[in-house]
Amino acid sequence: MKTPLEIVQLMLEKDAFSQLLGIEVLQISEGSCQLSMTVSKELLNGFHIAHGGICYSLADSALAFAANSYGFQSVSIETSISHVKKVLENDRLTATVKELNKTFKSGLYEVTVTNQHQEPVAFFKGTVLISSKIW
Amino acid sequence: MKTPLEIVQLMLEKDAFSQLLGIEVLQISEGSCQLSMTVSKELLNGFHIAHGGICYSLADSALAFAANSYGFQSVSIETSISHVKKVLENDRLTATVKELNKTFKSGLYEVTVTNQHQEPVAFFKGTVLISSKIW
Amino acid sequence: MKTPLEIVQLMLEKDAFSQLLGIEVLQISEGSCQLSMTVSKELLNGFHIAHGGICYSLADSALAFAANSYGFQSVSIETSISHVKKVLENDRLTATVKELNKTFKSGLYEVTVTNQHQEPVAFFKGTVLISSKIW
Amino acid sequence: MKTPLEIVQLMLEKDAFSQLLGIEVLQISEGSCQLSMTVSKELLNGFHIAHGGICYSLADSALAFAANSYGFQSVSIETSISHVKKVLENDRLTATVKELNKTFKSGLYEVTVTNQHQEPVAFFKGTVLISSKIW
Repeated sequence: MKTPLEIVQLMLEKDAFSQLLGIEVLQISEGSCQLSMTVSKELLNGFHIAHGGICYSLADSALAFAANSYGFQSVSIETSISHVKKVLENDRLTATVKELNKTFKSGLYEVTVTNQHQEPVAFFKGTVLISSKIW
Repeated sequence: MKTPLEIVQLMLEKDAFSQLLGIEVLQISEGSCQLSMTVSKELLNGFHIAHGGICYSLADSALAFAANSYGFQSVSIETSISHVKKVLENDRLTATVKELNKTFKSGLYEVTVTNQHQEPVAFFKGTVLISSKIW
Repeated sequence: MKTPLEIVQLMLEKDAFSQLLGIEVLQISEGSCQLSMTVSKELLNGFHIAHGGICYSLADSALAFAANSYGFQSVSIETSISHVKKVLENDRLTATVKELNKTFKSGLYEVTVTNQHQEPVAFFKGTVLISSKIW
Repeated sequence: MKTPLEIVQLMLEKDAFSQLLGIEVLQISEGSCQLSMTVSKELLNGFHIAHGGICYSLADSALAFAANSYGFQSVSIETSISHVKKVLENDRLTATVKELNKTFKSGLYEVTVTNQHQEPVAFFKGTVLISSKIW
């Protein structure tokens, strides 16, 4: 069975969109993950703040890594996000996953996205379906 | 008061991330919006499918345009999305907004994202807060 | 294999809470369900409007019946609801289920709750996990 | 201006549904609330477990009390709940509110419902709209 890190490396390998976002893995272990990225100019909208899709993408990646880290292929089936603070150019975002529940068929995760001042910018919740396919 | 189209043009102007996604406006009117984009190679993950953040970003933009089209500045405060079908390279995505409810303070919108075969790939729901600030 | 109606009868049998709510089945078929109830005095809060839990309960029951009607035991794993209109005493509520997506492992359903004037009072979305256990 | 406790008393007064559920207030202060109830026989479904609407109703009441405790009338506009453990007859449920975010117009709250063994049975998230009307 692969380790959580090996699985994340497999998932990130050749991942063009994550490279575009500049996602870095700070921590990965079973059911847990911490990712980071800096908001570049090309991720801003016309009002010089990051598009809502940026925080979503970071949180969704963190969810995917945490959920798949147990070694079974998992897909998210429902996700929600509340944006609570504007994200500016050069903000350093960190997404931290907390596992709320896990059965052998599904998992529930909460991801908090903070900026470099440790202020929350978005709260994300995701439900995943766990398959029997091994990574 | 500006027209819906003038407001969307203001919102899209200098919008680097929308340009990166290649978002096009098919239709815009009060409470309604239809956007389209083609999934380019740089929006794929390591498994050659679009990152979940792509559909989210398209739907979130469609929500923002529909909600702001009445002329009052609006921000989303809660959004959720269920991804139901894989999105591949060169897929042509269309996001269509349906207004479920609107008061003078908040709005509730449903956005369906379909591919070029008219198959739904994601169902999105968003709640917006309407301010008294005029565009 | 049992019919959708037989399954719902099994689910409703000895169901104390549904009897308390006064839930009636208007229609049931695979992936579809319509329920109705009248808001009695004991379901009101101190402001003479129905508690948010009433619409939720009706919609959640409709989701459960629609999802289980295929013959495989299913449980909801994520549900959300937006209340858009006050529900008063003696209002006649109807919950109508629309299946948005179904695989052999999960399903996504939308439930609209309307009052006797055909006005929507709540929009509900639910994700279910489908087991291999037969009713 | 009324105190949080005075506001909750006003909200609970003549509240038939809360009395039916047997809701008790364990703690109330600005942005915070803890409620408790015991699951009686009449709240069970045909499978001898509590209907999903029970946990929802308890969490929704806790949200309402926490959000209104600041003295301004607030209504929930979006709520979601994930049920993670079966609730049985005589289970003692406790709902605990955590405020995730608050502006002068809206608030975001998380409510965790646990049983008498301190096991989480449901995770609830709610967004409220804050009016300028004073209690």
